[in-house]
Amino acid sequence: MEAIAVRREGGNATVERIEKPRPEPSTGEALVRTLRVGVDGTDHEVIEGVHGDFPEGEDHLVLGHEAVGVVEDANGTALEEGELVVPTVRRPPNGTNDYFERGEPDMAPEGQYLERGIVGAHGFMAEYFTSPAEYLVRLPPELAEWGFLVEPLSITEKAVEHAEATRSAFDWQPESALVLGNGSLGLITLAAFEREYDRTYCLGRRERPDPTIDIIEWLGSTYVNSTETPVSEIPAAYEAMDLIYEATGYAPHAFETIEALAPNGVGALLGVPGDWSFEIDGGKLHREFVLHNKALVGSVNSHAGHFEAAIDTLAGLDEAFLDRLVTGVYGLDEYETAFADDDTTIKTAVEFASHEER
Amino acid sequence: MEAIAVRREGGNATVERIEKPRPEPSTGEALVRTLRVGVDGTDHEVIEGVHGDFPEGEDHLVLGHEAVGVVEDANGTALEEGELVVPTVRRPPNGTNDYFERGEPDMAPEGQYLERGIVGAHGFMAEYFTSPAEYLVRLPPELAEWGFLVEPLSITEKAVEHAEATRSAFDWQPESALVLGNGSLGLITLAAFEREYDRTYCLGRRERPDPTIDIIEWLGSTYVNSTETPVSEIPAAYEAMDLIYEATGYAPHAFETIEALAPNGVGALLGVPGDWSFEIDGGKLHREFVLHNKALVGSVNSHAGHFEAAIDTLAGLDEAFLDRLVTGVYGLDEYETAFADDDTTIKTAVEFASHEER
Repeated sequence: MEAIAVRREGGNATVERIEKPRPEPSTGEALVRTLRVGVDGTDHEVIEGVHGDFPEGEDHLVLGHEAVGVVEDANGTALEEGELVVPTVRRPPNGTNDYFERGEPDMAPEGQYLERGIVGAHGFMAEYFTSPAEYLVRLPPELAEWGFLVEPLSITEKAVEHAEATRSAFDWQPESALVLGNGSLGLITLAAFEREYDRTYCLGRRERPDPTIDIIEWLGSTYVNSTETPVSEIPAAYEAMDLIYEATGYAPHAFETIEALAPNGVGALLGVPGDWSFEIDGGKLHREFVLHNKALVGSVNSHAGHFEAAIDTLAGLDEAFLDRLVTGVYGLDEYETAFADDDTTIKTAVEFASHEER
Repeated sequence: MEAIAVRREGGNATVERIEKPRPEPSTGEALVRTLRVGVDGTDHEVIEGVHGDFPEGEDHLVLGHEAVGVVEDANGTALEEGELVVPTVRRPPNGTNDYFERGEPDMAPEGQYLERGIVGAHGFMAEYFTSPAEYLVRLPPELAEWGFLVEPLSITEKAVEHAEATRSAFDWQPESALVLGNGSLGLITLAAFEREYDRTYCLGRRERPDPTIDIIEWLGSTYVNSTETPVSEIPAAYEAMDLIYEATGYAPHAFETIEALAPNGVGALLGVPGDWSFEIDGGKLHREFVLHNKALVGSVNSHAGHFEAAIDTLAGLDEAFLDRLVTGVYGLDEYETAFADDDTTIKTAVEFASHEER
């Protein structure tokens, strides 16, 4: 079967179409025929070599962690052939561990997980993949086309669940929400927020005309240009925010978020920056945390429950929004286009098989 | 009646014994005869003028926010004469507002509360005070002697409730807890933590011999000397912490806490530092937040429910610990000694009347 993998020789990484044997499901595993696999910022970091690891002893890593597929061989599991499924990303490294046993692989610390397509395990960008049935989440057939968006939405479901948990000891009544970052994760999160909060904002550093700004405004949200309004000045320029969702990986944003929050507000951090030292007014930020009961919470990955919540959220999103968000779905012959990273590309996927054809 | 108040003339603050008329309870208020009132760091900040405000139009502020008293005149409220009560601290500034209506004055932002003895309202360091009955929490008679410790313990109850809330979206199993600060709030918190967590630590900057280090070790906890082990190096020197409780007001601790936390850990911030700019490795801290699902939560003040929880906690503390913690209880004639701030003073209170005498 065909797969898309990254290889590294010297300092050079190449993304290639490769031939691999079709995998055989072990006991408890199903064989899945891949339909579509999304591309995101993490894939680009994996390709650049700044994030993730190849599987032990391998000279390549099959890419892809945002997949949707159809069960080809249920192999005696509770699944049925023909069912649509979305795979979760983390797998136990050696046998299992407590985090996986209790269904919370997203809370496992480093060394206690692999991530398919990212950390030490091949991804889903292949014509077929196998997976233990417990890591395959059923998807309604009408969502087949958009199923590769379940994994990124699940990241948001977890981050928001954890952010809301921080505010669960009192009667929190959030009205305003700000998304930092107008990449594909930021935009799909904004679309979900638009349904939950009275007033939403999305921050980016692009100038008009720009397709992401068009989407932000089409959603009914307010675009905040970070080159004109730094995060710390958003309360003065717009309003203080009850919820801030950081999806930029730009470290100063994590700390400016404290100032941009309204009293009793919470910031969810999702970016993964490299080391970067800079000055902050730590006394002021510490005081702000305390006197206004603010919280910051980091969030990574997601568990099967978040995938299920993401499927519900996806079903409620406007198809017109999804059409604008997904700027391209490319067959194997044009897979390179799916990895383009320019200002007209928002969200792309590689299509291995069409849902209609199966 | 007599009271203890701070006056300020020019830049000089004096703490004085003053004569004031005994207050008359309004409808819905009870008259309380004061037994003991504790002294803490906030009182010293109020005296220095770095925190709080005098009541509008007044040239003095009666001090004290950690009180225990006995109902002298129930005045038609649900209380009974002779009952022991501990007053909460916040009061609505003009009529009421949503935060007070729903019993969460601790979540009110600046401008929507007064604080007795701190912000714009006289405190409890007087022979009598009045209070709406809803702000008086009943105390069992056997705790009369230690009732002035309920307010500081309620601060910890709230902070821990909010910290635990941040971890409520998953199966959190904390084992290690670190208190930053060996002042009276740090030590009473440590005593409460000693009952909840397998391993506890308390950080200070004192050298032996020192009475707070003696208490820490007597509790079965480990003393961490911050002049030898910076907070960020605690995981290497001891272990990474599931819960960190910051009660130093030293701003770098707020940020070093992120590094000292174990994966999935939470830091509760309680200090109120002034402005102070310094450099941090913001990229590393941001990444730590995200990849290890960490949280920081600020916490200020407490509501009646936290006072009730604090009474339960207080009832479970060893009297031998409380005897060591409270280094002096002083009558009105020696009130100045209660405001001493040296290395042999841990916790003090002013006694206005003895519980036995009433």
